[in-house]
Amino acid sequence: PSLHKLQLSAGDIDTGGYPHFMLKEIFEQPDSLRNTMRGRLDLDVASAKFGGLNLSPQQLRQVERIILTGCGTSWHAGLVGEYQIEALARIPVEVEYASELRYRNPPLSNNTLLFAITQSGETADTLAALREMKRKGHPTLAICNVVGSTIAQEADGGIYLHAGPEIGVASTKAFTSQCLVLALLALYFGRLRDLSFEAGIRIIEKIRQLPDKVAQALECDARVRRVADRFYQCRNFLYLGRQFNFPTALEGALKLKEISYIHAEGYPAAEMKHGPIALVDEHTPSVFLLPRGPVYEKVLANMQEIKARGGPIIAVVEEGDREASSLADEIIEVPAVDDFLQPIVFIVPLQLLAYHIAVARGCDVDKPRNLAKSVTVE
Amino acid sequence: PSLHKLQLSAGDIDTGGYPHFMLKEIFEQPDSLRNTMRGRLDLDVASAKFGGLNLSPQQLRQVERIILTGCGTSWHAGLVGEYQIEALARIPVEVEYASELRYRNPPLSNNTLLFAITQSGETADTLAALREMKRKGHPTLAICNVVGSTIAQEADGGIYLHAGPEIGVASTKAFTSQCLVLALLALYFGRLRDLSFEAGIRIIEKIRQLPDKVAQALECDARVRRVADRFYQCRNFLYLGRQFNFPTALEGALKLKEISYIHAEGYPAAEMKHGPIALVDEHTPSVFLLPRGPVYEKVLANMQEIKARGGPIIAVVEEGDREASSLADEIIEVPAVDDFLQPIVFIVPLQLLAYHIAVARGCDVDKPRNLAKSVTVE
Repeated sequence: PSLHKLQLSAGDIDTGGYPHFMLKEIFEQPDSLRNTMRGRLDLDVASAKFGGLNLSPQQLRQVERIILTGCGTSWHAGLVGEYQIEALARIPVEVEYASELRYRNPPLSNNTLLFAITQSGETADTLAALREMKRKGHPTLAICNVVGSTIAQEADGGIYLHAGPEIGVASTKAFTSQCLVLALLALYFGRLRDLSFEAGIRIIEKIRQLPDKVAQALECDARVRRVADRFYQCRNFLYLGRQFNFPTALEGALKLKEISYIHAEGYPAAEMKHGPIALVDEHTPSVFLLPRGPVYEKVLANMQEIKARGGPIIAVVEEGDREASSLADEIIEVPAVDDFLQPIVFIVPLQLLAYHIAVARGCDVDKPRNLAKSVTVE
Repeated sequence: PSLHKLQLSAGDIDTGGYPHFMLKEIFEQPDSLRNTMRGRLDLDVASAKFGGLNLSPQQLRQVERIILTGCGTSWHAGLVGEYQIEALARIPVEVEYASELRYRNPPLSNNTLLFAITQSGETADTLAALREMKRKGHPTLAICNVVGSTIAQEADGGIYLHAGPEIGVASTKAFTSQCLVLALLALYFGRLRDLSFEAGIRIIEKIRQLPDKVAQALECDARVRRVADRFYQCRNFLYLGRQFNFPTALEGALKLKEISYIHAEGYPAAEMKHGPIALVDEHTPSVFLLPRGPVYEKVLANMQEIKARGGPIIAVVEEGDREASSLADEIIEVPAVDDFLQPIVFIVPLQLLAYHIAVARGCDVDKPRNLAKSVTVE
């Protein structure tokens, strides 16, 4: 076992003037995203580059199927990665709960590659799933934040988030960096296959603008705080989004659950009418993620159904979108970005909403009850 | 458009002495399952047979990947089918929300087969997904209950549930028949491939015993009613299961949500510690599905964590299991069956629990607020 020196500065281990680590980490995201992409954008070949994949391009272009596995927030990042990789690289992706993957023995072709996603690199379920896939002879790669962690060491290779230490139990900056790494991977695999040089350059430009977009999204903080003040006593929330923002909805709901103990649940927006809408009443707000795009009108129709049943609506929209304001009780604006980067921008107000609601309820934001930062038991 | 004569008897359209259609339909399950399997077990070749697949064995053995799609309860049946088909036939299965599949354009190989799962055969999202897959040239099959429905007619072929009319808005007997059809398909595809004659016969024997096992499971009714009386005022429930019973947990939670308006959420049991456990307190019961088997001890450990945090525990166990009683506040016993059939037996007490809780809360069981039996809008 090799020794790794911890690279911590004083700023990493105090709250730096913020009342909680979680809020500090939410506001660090423009910087953590810059750190995640640093040195990984290759304009010469219009692709991403990674130092430690330890697999040759020959091996990587043989990949026929990718399994993304993780737990909790990392599993949500996996769902984002599924949409990103399938859209940009056209490789079929399956996302598996690590705890389920370990025991369920799914049929996997020879050319199946595993990515284990974990902030700490110590998550017991994810480690067990990784070992099981290694045992079967599949190449395994880690996407983790903590350098020298067990999973980073046991995987055949991997990609570090470089997001800096995450102290708040509810993961925020690690999630957005995971989504960014997966976007970089989608670009990388796409450029091994059918994505053109031109398309690669365009994607790189979008990725480069991302930290500024996230900084802009953070300007909604005061607005989100007022929304939190209005709804913090509600006992139930629904979070609804589609396509790239379906996982964003799941992750937004998980944040609220983790730190405010409010029962929040995420769904693909169109699924709501197949059951969950029964929960809707005037005390159950629905948080909609509503970027412009091909399903915009469909999600608006879902909002109408909630409205007709008396449910309060909080809509996160792209700046300048006036159409949703006739239906929504509260509008939160974020900058427009390409769909494959939307989760990274749209999650920001949801992180802040969970934070401000938890504070309003007097919860211990950085140390929520019953939870540990890194779950090292099965 | 061809005309179909409705085959209804008086018994189909009144509650037959039960206070609600839902309860009647729950208790009909031994019969509806018998009807679903009638004529479909072929002992001569140790396989299942279906009248209307409209694909030759040559075409079916080319299948490299199966997509199961549906909404709500039918989507849960798809998750059960994924475990069943992957376990018995070793064909990779992906389950897609119909509303997401329609728009997300996933990469699909030529030999990808779609099954659209829908009770009514009229679900708008599922129909749209089916049409999209047909447009792309994939073979499409329907698993539905209503003969002559739109999806049954538009699919290239299909399998009817023969479960009889389902009137209650919360699906019960259609779900168990869907799971059974998927088990029969798993057997069928398995016997096209690596499953031996002997294994096929053993599976057929297990399937044949299923209606009696479900009848036995229904004997827990009085017990479940007492459990409902104890917990019906709780505002939040968690449902936890693993492997084949992870979808059972999702479906059990959906039943409660649909008809009692209690916020219930299902999770793979091991995921609980990655977030949802923050919700646990003395007013939030957890319903555990705890069959014997390789993950039994792991689920017991999850129960211990809930117990340590003061959460009440309702455990559904196999008959004669005494080990769980030291941890659980309430034990409900069901007969032991093979893992691939467990969802069909373990869902029974969860259907009854949702029913009795809804009745205790004075809810309109057969016509829950905000919901329609068949969702024919997107």
